[in-house]
Amino acid sequence: MPRLKLTIAYVGTNYCGWQIQAFSRRPQPTVQEELERVAERVLGTPVRIFGSGRTDSGVHAEGQVAHFDVPEDKADRDWQRTFNAMLPDDIAVLDVERVASDFHARINATGKIYAYSLWLTRRYTPPRLFPFVWATGPVDVAAMDAAARHLEGTHDFSTFRNVGTEVETCVRTLRSISRSPHGPLPGADTPDYARVGIPLQLTWYFEADGFLKQMVRNLMGTLVACGTGKLSPDAVPSLLAACDRAQAPATAPAQGLSLARVLY
Amino acid sequence: MPRLKLTIAYVGTNYCGWQIQAFSRRPQPTVQEELERVAERVLGTPVRIFGSGRTDSGVHAEGQVAHFDVPEDKADRDWQRTFNAMLPDDIAVLDVERVASDFHARINATGKIYAYSLWLTRRYTPPRLFPFVWATGPVDVAAMDAAARHLEGTHDFSTFRNVGTEVETCVRTLRSISRSPHGPLPGADTPDYARVGIPLQLTWYFEADGFLKQMVRNLMGTLVACGTGKLSPDAVPSLLAACDRAQAPATAPAQGLSLARVLY
Repeated sequence: MPRLKLTIAYVGTNYCGWQIQAFSRRPQPTVQEELERVAERVLGTPVRIFGSGRTDSGVHAEGQVAHFDVPEDKADRDWQRTFNAMLPDDIAVLDVERVASDFHARINATGKIYAYSLWLTRRYTPPRLFPFVWATGPVDVAAMDAAARHLEGTHDFSTFRNVGTEVETCVRTLRSISRSPHGPLPGADTPDYARVGIPLQLTWYFEADGFLKQMVRNLMGTLVACGTGKLSPDAVPSLLAACDRAQAPATAPAQGLSLARVLY
Repeated sequence: MPRLKLTIAYVGTNYCGWQIQAFSRRPQPTVQEELERVAERVLGTPVRIFGSGRTDSGVHAEGQVAHFDVPEDKADRDWQRTFNAMLPDDIAVLDVERVASDFHARINATGKIYAYSLWLTRRYTPPRLFPFVWATGPVDVAAMDAAARHLEGTHDFSTFRNVGTEVETCVRTLRSISRSPHGPLPGADTPDYARVGIPLQLTWYFEADGFLKQMVRNLMGTLVACGTGKLSPDAVPSLLAACDRAQAPATAPAQGLSLARVLY
């Protein structure tokens, strides 16, 4: 059967994450359920949609990827229009592509990029940004950059992994941690943000060949601990070497995180 | 009594506009009510907060201004922190300033700037932007610019005024209509929006000495009619001269509109 690759954006605030929870008693749906519901209604048969991986409850996506199979006579349908007409407003299909029938959204992924945004004053958070940032207050960006340099590379990331998912190894290659430059604010073209004058939103990007459970949120929690003076960047190598989650600072909140892109 | 000037941002989606509705049976609160509720709880007495003007149901603000009076012994309280701790997340006080006791948020305003955002493809709307744009699909920006040139200046704007509020005159000076350049997208720093390559969100700014009821939304409805070929920009001068709301295109939806700034 023809296979379709979906690129999906969502605001995760009202979802219990990407993946369908077995035996869930929670009232919130998952993004996967919403997509499957549309596909099933169109195809008249149960459909499984395979994502590149889970996102936690409350985490957003700008470029989640998933695949599913459709009968040949339904393959050329305008699936993007169909999905976007029937999905809730907080989920959008950005792109639909016909791919080889052995393409697999999870298995073929060669890497992922996650974005994590901070808001750097505690005086106020702009209501538009509230669902998408962690309002940490001011941070020492240079200290965070120094800590980031220790985290990049191939390591056992057990220290930054929450338990709950079986994995064969905790070794991952964190290709890069970068951040947005001190440039204009998103929304800087509106007069009132412009007068703030300094960039109060900063976004960090984490690119790796794969991520462990809550790894980005745990890495970000450690970067912010360095940025707020609670942890020295020099302590990061021993933290990493300890392979002990209990030693690392607290997990950063879900709302600042977004799955920016899946690489193939 | 000391007078305080508040600069306020809000996401208008869940509010019945700025102003308290007399005899309202609607379940949604207004932004003014939320602010007064906080001030009353702190001061222990009914408080009236005066805004620079109304915003419609569903319209947002980045820089609404309001004033209220407080007893001398409460004037130096950290009012910004108080408001932001007690307000819902979709309203934020960006600034609090002590002003002269004859300052009036509405009467002293010398002008206002409204922003209106369009999303230029109907294939999808990014979930983060959905509450803040009108998804018109592609528009002819040059035709809209030509129409804007006819609307700028001092005119009787009756054609672009919805009835419902008594005013002495419909003459206003529309100082300028400008728009965001074809620059990078908001969110262009995330890989998946960047690959779109062209700016799919465009924002128009309207600056005038004052606005009539739904004037910006009516002006935007006319600009978009020009941008989608339903109206010739050359027809705009006679539309304006007709002073007849029935002749103008439909009102643009509330959600794309934001009160960007009040000028004093």
